[in-house]
Amino acid sequence: MKLLYPTSLKLDVSKLEGFGIELHPYDVKQQIPDNLLDAEVLVTWCNSPDNFKHAAQNMHKLHWIQSLAAGPNDVLNAGFDTKKIMVTTGSGLHDRTVAEHTLGLLLNAARRFYEMRDYQVQGKWPQHLGGPQPDKVPGTFTTLEDANITIWGFGNIAKYLAPYLTAIGAKVRGVARHAGVRNGIEIYSDDKLAEILPKTDALVMILPGSESTYHALNADRLKLLPKHAWIVNVGRGTCIDEDALNSALDNDAIGGAALDVFEKEPLPESSPLYKQKNVILSPHAAGGRPRDAEQLIADNLRRFIAGQQLKNLV
Amino acid sequence: MKLLYPTSLKLDVSKLEGFGIELHPYDVKQQIPDNLLDAEVLVTWCNSPDNFKHAAQNMHKLHWIQSLAAGPNDVLNAGFDTKKIMVTTGSGLHDRTVAEHTLGLLLNAARRFYEMRDYQVQGKWPQHLGGPQPDKVPGTFTTLEDANITIWGFGNIAKYLAPYLTAIGAKVRGVARHAGVRNGIEIYSDDKLAEILPKTDALVMILPGSESTYHALNADRLKLLPKHAWIVNVGRGTCIDEDALNSALDNDAIGGAALDVFEKEPLPESSPLYKQKNVILSPHAAGGRPRDAEQLIADNLRRFIAGQQLKNLV
Repeated sequence: MKLLYPTSLKLDVSKLEGFGIELHPYDVKQQIPDNLLDAEVLVTWCNSPDNFKHAAQNMHKLHWIQSLAAGPNDVLNAGFDTKKIMVTTGSGLHDRTVAEHTLGLLLNAARRFYEMRDYQVQGKWPQHLGGPQPDKVPGTFTTLEDANITIWGFGNIAKYLAPYLTAIGAKVRGVARHAGVRNGIEIYSDDKLAEILPKTDALVMILPGSESTYHALNADRLKLLPKHAWIVNVGRGTCIDEDALNSALDNDAIGGAALDVFEKEPLPESSPLYKQKNVILSPHAAGGRPRDAEQLIADNLRRFIAGQQLKNLV
Repeated sequence: MKLLYPTSLKLDVSKLEGFGIELHPYDVKQQIPDNLLDAEVLVTWCNSPDNFKHAAQNMHKLHWIQSLAAGPNDVLNAGFDTKKIMVTTGSGLHDRTVAEHTLGLLLNAARRFYEMRDYQVQGKWPQHLGGPQPDKVPGTFTTLEDANITIWGFGNIAKYLAPYLTAIGAKVRGVARHAGVRNGIEIYSDDKLAEILPKTDALVMILPGSESTYHALNADRLKLLPKHAWIVNVGRGTCIDEDALNSALDNDAIGGAALDVFEKEPLPESSPLYKQKNVILSPHAAGGRPRDAEQLIADNLRRFIAGQQLKNLV
């Protein structure tokens, strides 16, 4: 049996040894060589569309694709016969790095580093942002302490992020399909959004991209947020109606937005988001660095060989 | 007995009641009115030099000044007779807000939000900062996870900051006058700097301003840092030799610097720091918002009346 692993990231392949199978590296930007087309397992990371198309047409023994992406849309849209081929995601590999980036975006917004930067490049000192300042004024978002932070989409990333926020003193709520208490955070079902959004100082969106989350944050829901509220999106760009967001920003109807994902990426140069005053743009940089991928691959490889249910099965 | 409290910040004065003394507000930018000059206790926050000078000359019954600043240099240099008058600091009131800002500066540096901003204002997408990226490459500072972070000056602010950093996965060391273990963090005495600095990915300086800390980070010590190391200073500007820092930045001898304090504030427009590539400037904005000041004042007021040792006595 052959497992093909990508050379598009650094993997410690010694951690995949011991299963008595052949481990072969491959280039994700090239077609898979003929002598490897009989592999049963394919690990993917940033494969080119052509690589995928060729693999889907020619890897007839393929049983399992382990993507290292949290949302393996590329694999699912590549034409593989998913009736015969199991696809598992890299869910979990990006939690810590996305949580860290999200925390950075929230602090950038609250502490206005983006605005300080604009003064800096002009060689000016932004006096109004420094020195003695009023603290925790109601109707402002200037610190995470005592801020009401709503995390919409409460999966694994949120489980890392929430403790960072509560450590700093934020009041964290979650919104998800099902209500409950997870990791000590109260989760509301999404039919309670009309109740939660008006009490939100910062809305962190970590929703996956799907039909059901398309434009989840639309004009109606934007209207429910307080005028000072910030939106942070590290989920998928399709989850926000960008036109509605731009309108809200134009009208100062919200405090600002820190966005790592967009309806179209790269964000077109024509997008008005570039010119909005209180907007922080990050080029889909929150994740993109799978961590401890070897551990997930090895665990699933063991399960695969033992005929057990795989982790992160789509 | 009279206590004068400043109107330069919002105080819940009801929390100072119950001691049987008179509580009077005063304007820190004006001279204290004649009828209040017989006060025994003066609480200060951002008083004008003229206010202080006049008070020092005319408040003959003054026994105790409670500053709300962490470093009350303004009080100490105002000409009060400190043989007769006790001065207590606001140490502790700024810990959480400075720790939060420091965390923000570290994430800004690691995640390069400052560089993203420069692209944003030009309407451009910084592709090189987004998408799939190598992770935790030795000799880089791109994440707090597994980063070696040295906190130089391990007082109350560090005690808040360190747990934030360790939660994200950083390896935190402290440097202080005395070695030991504080709050679970190993503290090295400052004669070990030559050993610690070369192992540092980010150096957070939280030293107080004093003769002994003047230019603590000088050319010789800058040379001990790895080429990729960032410096974050939220202590006092005098603790860094800015000329030496600029030289190090000019020569790419360090990774960058995120600075909230400067040898001269506001930072003069002529300073080369404005134009350095990997520098983040923050206008002394980390603190400036005393938190729970009423609790410190009330506690010290009780001690004062009971004839006990005051907290934060200079």
